[in-house]
Amino acid sequence: MKQLRIGMIGYKFMGKAHSNAYRSLPMFFPQALKPQMAVICGRNEEAVSAAAGQLGWAESVTDWKELVAREDIDLIDINAPSNAHKEIALAAAKAGKHIFCEKPLALNLADSREMLEAADAAGVKHMIGFNYRFSPAVRLAKRLIESGRLGQIYHFRAWFLQDWILDPEFPLVWRLQKEVAGSGSHGDLGAHLIDLAHFLVGDVQEVIGMSETFVKERPLASEMTGLSARAGKDAPRGPVTVDDATLFLARFTGGAIGSFEATRFAAGHRSTNAFEINGSLGSVKFDFERMNELEVYLTSDAEDVQGFRRVLATDPAHDYAEAWWPPGHTIGFEHTFIHEMLELSSAIAEDRQPEPNFNDGVKCQAVLEAVERSIEERRWVQVSEM
Amino acid sequence: MKQLRIGMIGYKFMGKAHSNAYRSLPMFFPQALKPQMAVICGRNEEAVSAAAGQLGWAESVTDWKELVAREDIDLIDINAPSNAHKEIALAAAKAGKHIFCEKPLALNLADSREMLEAADAAGVKHMIGFNYRFSPAVRLAKRLIESGRLGQIYHFRAWFLQDWILDPEFPLVWRLQKEVAGSGSHGDLGAHLIDLAHFLVGDVQEVIGMSETFVKERPLASEMTGLSARAGKDAPRGPVTVDDATLFLARFTGGAIGSFEATRFAAGHRSTNAFEINGSLGSVKFDFERMNELEVYLTSDAEDVQGFRRVLATDPAHDYAEAWWPPGHTIGFEHTFIHEMLELSSAIAEDRQPEPNFNDGVKCQAVLEAVERSIEERRWVQVSEM
Amino acid sequence: MKQLRIGMIGYKFMGKAHSNAYRSLPMFFPQALKPQMAVICGRNEEAVSAAAGQLGWAESVTDWKELVAREDIDLIDINAPSNAHKEIALAAAKAGKHIFCEKPLALNLADSREMLEAADAAGVKHMIGFNYRFSPAVRLAKRLIESGRLGQIYHFRAWFLQDWILDPEFPLVWRLQKEVAGSGSHGDLGAHLIDLAHFLVGDVQEVIGMSETFVKERPLASEMTGLSARAGKDAPRGPVTVDDATLFLARFTGGAIGSFEATRFAAGHRSTNAFEINGSLGSVKFDFERMNELEVYLTSDAEDVQGFRRVLATDPAHDYAEAWWPPGHTIGFEHTFIHEMLELSSAIAEDRQPEPNFNDGVKCQAVLEAVERSIEERRWVQVSEM
Amino acid sequence: MKQLRIGMIGYKFMGKAHSNAYRSLPMFFPQALKPQMAVICGRNEEAVSAAAGQLGWAESVTDWKELVAREDIDLIDINAPSNAHKEIALAAAKAGKHIFCEKPLALNLADSREMLEAADAAGVKHMIGFNYRFSPAVRLAKRLIESGRLGQIYHFRAWFLQDWILDPEFPLVWRLQKEVAGSGSHGDLGAHLIDLAHFLVGDVQEVIGMSETFVKERPLASEMTGLSARAGKDAPRGPVTVDDATLFLARFTGGAIGSFEATRFAAGHRSTNAFEINGSLGSVKFDFERMNELEVYLTSDAEDVQGFRRVLATDPAHDYAEAWWPPGHTIGFEHTFIHEMLELSSAIAEDRQPEPNFNDGVKCQAVLEAVERSIEERRWVQVSEM
Repeated sequence: MKQLRIGMIGYKFMGKAHSNAYRSLPMFFPQALKPQMAVICGRNEEAVSAAAGQLGWAESVTDWKELVAREDIDLIDINAPSNAHKEIALAAAKAGKHIFCEKPLALNLADSREMLEAADAAGVKHMIGFNYRFSPAVRLAKRLIESGRLGQIYHFRAWFLQDWILDPEFPLVWRLQKEVAGSGSHGDLGAHLIDLAHFLVGDVQEVIGMSETFVKERPLASEMTGLSARAGKDAPRGPVTVDDATLFLARFTGGAIGSFEATRFAAGHRSTNAFEINGSLGSVKFDFERMNELEVYLTSDAEDVQGFRRVLATDPAHDYAEAWWPPGHTIGFEHTFIHEMLELSSAIAEDRQPEPNFNDGVKCQAVLEAVERSIEERRWVQVSEM
Repeated sequence: MKQLRIGMIGYKFMGKAHSNAYRSLPMFFPQALKPQMAVICGRNEEAVSAAAGQLGWAESVTDWKELVAREDIDLIDINAPSNAHKEIALAAAKAGKHIFCEKPLALNLADSREMLEAADAAGVKHMIGFNYRFSPAVRLAKRLIESGRLGQIYHFRAWFLQDWILDPEFPLVWRLQKEVAGSGSHGDLGAHLIDLAHFLVGDVQEVIGMSETFVKERPLASEMTGLSARAGKDAPRGPVTVDDATLFLARFTGGAIGSFEATRFAAGHRSTNAFEINGSLGSVKFDFERMNELEVYLTSDAEDVQGFRRVLATDPAHDYAEAWWPPGHTIGFEHTFIHEMLELSSAIAEDRQPEPNFNDGVKCQAVLEAVERSIEERRWVQVSEM
Repeated sequence: MKQLRIGMIGYKFMGKAHSNAYRSLPMFFPQALKPQMAVICGRNEEAVSAAAGQLGWAESVTDWKELVAREDIDLIDINAPSNAHKEIALAAAKAGKHIFCEKPLALNLADSREMLEAADAAGVKHMIGFNYRFSPAVRLAKRLIESGRLGQIYHFRAWFLQDWILDPEFPLVWRLQKEVAGSGSHGDLGAHLIDLAHFLVGDVQEVIGMSETFVKERPLASEMTGLSARAGKDAPRGPVTVDDATLFLARFTGGAIGSFEATRFAAGHRSTNAFEINGSLGSVKFDFERMNELEVYLTSDAEDVQGFRRVLATDPAHDYAEAWWPPGHTIGFEHTFIHEMLELSSAIAEDRQPEPNFNDGVKCQAVLEAVERSIEERRWVQVSEM
Repeated sequence: MKQLRIGMIGYKFMGKAHSNAYRSLPMFFPQALKPQMAVICGRNEEAVSAAAGQLGWAESVTDWKELVAREDIDLIDINAPSNAHKEIALAAAKAGKHIFCEKPLALNLADSREMLEAADAAGVKHMIGFNYRFSPAVRLAKRLIESGRLGQIYHFRAWFLQDWILDPEFPLVWRLQKEVAGSGSHGDLGAHLIDLAHFLVGDVQEVIGMSETFVKERPLASEMTGLSARAGKDAPRGPVTVDDATLFLARFTGGAIGSFEATRFAAGHRSTNAFEINGSLGSVKFDFERMNELEVYLTSDAEDVQGFRRVLATDPAHDYAEAWWPPGHTIGFEHTFIHEMLELSSAIAEDRQPEPNFNDGVKCQAVLEAVERSIEERRWVQVSEM
């Protein structure tokens, strides 16, 4: 294989982020198997054709089933709305294509498992888009934990705080509709936190959660793109069918305890995806709004200079940094996708499963649903029940 | 009443903080009813006598029962270990003395209620030592909420993170023994968070918690003062009978949802008593390690300059600030006690109950115990059950 | 003109940043005149050919004179070492090409003026690479000042602090040799500060400076790229002929006063390009290590919530933000170049001079040299003397 | 000597800070020679009598000459306006009293030297009130430098930024009148920076400065206390005769270079007394608005966790900390004075000169005047010229 020929389904926010990643990979990671931006697919012919031009795809199509069946495609990139993931992934697996699927893997755990089994049965590579793993500062946290430099982990606490729907007049976009999005802040934001917990601390044993929908009805959206949208004046209203905020407590199998919070009602937080981990030998703190930084505390520091240090993960000692700019010159949100696609491309070239893959998607979904069940049944739920 | 004649029981960490507060009140708040530092009481005659000299008390005694009965005392200040609070408070109430009691009010809710009833029945003034309410930055948060400037409150999240027992060889001090301390991080640190939640957001309706004791045995302490202690080499070990960390989720009667965490195992956090509150019109953030600051976000800011602002609560517009130093000149931990004693002294002069008083202590204890029950029974517990 | 056909001379650090910018422009700013990455030029045939492949140029050549003369090129992008800028720019102007030139414009003011005059005489568009103007947070500062929201400007203070040559064994790279670089931290880093001062505050009237070379000899470099380099063991040493650090005070024609510092000896600062501006109605602070943020203080805030607010310049209200990701999703160093090339492309499409252009390069050089003269002659120097 | 019997002249802002320090010393540093708050002196009989009551002085008088001559006084504390320092100090020395004098020592260098000579000739102890030396975080900086942990010092940069006279209608208080205050921001704020530079980095060799008075006339004050004041409506105006802002560059005898800025026109800065020091092995940053913290960078940290750490100087490892509260419990502005008086009291008990003493006052005044001369004569001035 000399190039990785990609067919991508979806062309909005995530489609743009993925396109940019594929396009940037050869410039910054020339050693990687090169993605060929072959075909982009969407339902609206005019829009997808324009997207192809703007985003740099050689061809655009409207029928994903034809795309999945094409001989000249190696990998299907699924970033269509969440409720379409399963059907596409199953078809892609059946066609023997490698699959990159945006999170969430599917709308529920059963579907997610079906997708994993199908992909494994087909012997294809599969990856899921938990892009925050690919921040250099998060990799540093991982390295400190794995190498034992933080000691035994006691605490994990994480928040994904946004405020884009704080205004009660913000429209009822698809992300607020259960039948399309599957879940609200829990599945959208909490899923990232759960994956980071899995990546950094390990498996979750049991959970108990609570959730709330603060604004129960909203005007129907007339237009939406990315996270922004508009509603006409006096637009009719519809019910919000997902959670505005979900919190839960967790016990990890390794003995750590954790708390998680995902909300879209935290005024002033545009996108605070943050965590802190405390171990017996040190702690780390991360906030995606300052994604180049990891705060690190080590008990081994001399006793008169102990304190959290702000590490800017742009030195050659940090993952990915040498491919970018000199120390102190930061990178941004989109770079997490470039690194993600580097993993995808490298794993395929090396004939191994990428990380994170559908197993991680299933694991995340199991925790998400355990939390949901714990909310419905108002009790602690073992993840193993799911 | 020209002076408030005080008999104080206890003379260690809190005794020092209270003494400093009484001593400082007339200098910085000359309008206040002046505390007269009459009698200090402790079991060890030599030690309490030395404390009297150092801390500025006119007289020292060893029998608190005699002290409580004295005619020349108006108020009993109780900062003895937690397991002694109840008996002293009941006696003081019976003797018709006003009472200032350090938190926790008692080791359990029933005792707390008995103390409240006794004090109310005796018609004395009673106050409890939730000193963090008296940070100017916390008062600013209160003012912003009460005046409606943050709108409807959606989220309260709070942490009290310390690391002073992170080392497994740190000795088994009294704060780690249930029979003396009543509770661990939950009662010691979490109690402050609960009171701040009551003060700022309102009543808690239901809770569910989890707790952990990470280090289950420790060497017996040979010496202890404040939060520091020493154990001899090869000291025998005893069991830690309180929680190292307790977390819980909560629903407030006003509709907000909250998460609370108290731990002594957060490496790098010497004393991070922090909270964030998100409302429909704005948010505030507070961290006691930077106690002069409140971060404030207001949705009403012009759209191109929206962001959390760091307000240094040292301007004349802020509570207590004019009594201290010019703007930008900060105050410290001990000042919360001076402001607390200002409230105590003012309330007595004005013949009203101080705030917070034993009612707040009882309310706090009810939530603490609701959390404990929720942990034992692994279910959501209504605070009204308690 | 349907595309802007570019011939770029230079292919290292800046060549990569420019290539990425040209390549990204159509994806994120599809309305812009599209750059065609036609020809890349460098002295080492093999290296430049490899660079062409990696960076996405259609063709590579080794003779810049031929390139400049080609009919099928509209714009010459000069990011060769500083001592080559002048000759190339003069030739490009003579050939009627538009010119983008990295800073510094030339090694001295006379050469810079010659370049400006040549470009103006040729009637071509010219631009200089002061990329930091193109941070959204810096644009916000500009907008606040221009609209009068900061009032009369009193103070400008700026630092460009790096530490990449702190180690005395770091090799003698070209940036430390006066005959190639022209200047050290002053011309490399200070130039950016001066341009930001011009952009934000206005013209400088008089200056006085000081400079120092802390490490006077270094091992000769065997290899260098970007800001990193290596020297062989026991490599011969040569003299550092530029300044390690240069500071100066300045008076602006508008009445403000300023201080500037550029150094490569500030341990812990990988690339702190920071400024603060104080006006009669407010202040702003910027630090490139947190380039998405501008701290803003406004005296018009209510008196109890005055403080510097951290504005994340990723909202739709901020320049360029809508082309990128949702609010709270940050961008990085390279994006300043994309915005820079947007201005270049837009100005050419609109038949106007881009900003900043060679006039700004000359103005910057005049201040740089006024500072140098003030150091040599140990006196205040009027910029008008230059 | 069993107690240090004090006569204090002045009873406003500094008088209150000193009184609080004397009063607090025995409680927190019981080992120290105890100050006896004997006599307070001021011109207004009623006001000084009230101050005596509030601040805790045994007696109040209005004639400082009588006070200085009294047998029952060991030390004269001078915190009267700056233009009265000299005469009082000379009289106190003549009377054989120890002297604590607030900064500035006098209105000019000649007077300062005369005071030093008189005190030395009289064989008394003398101290000057550079209180910022006594912040635990500043002591930590000192320790890191003295022990060589920062290596060779290259850079010192410091700012004292305030904004209390930003409003052009703020009245013409005594601090804005040269005949009383001697100097404006330079002598008031810059003096502190210079002393910190002396304390931390060493002697200054040469300087060049600039200054500005942005608001040249102000309404006459009808009332003033501390840094606040009021003017009547339509109050007559008078000229501001001191500098609003003064900046200067400096070369230290040890090879470091420095920049200094003092201003009262930095909107948003209530009292930012901040410095940064860069050495060959590390850096430190301090800001008095967060006075409990020192940011520390050490090149010896492992390469993947290098960064400025925020050290909270409240651990037992830090100066003074054990006398106060547990780690993480901060102190405030007034504590610098308590530590200052500890040094005063200790030095007298140990029969040695306190630090800083009049020598430091003279050294500071020499630099202040060298800067002033450099401004007048628009040239570099050697401190040795003064």
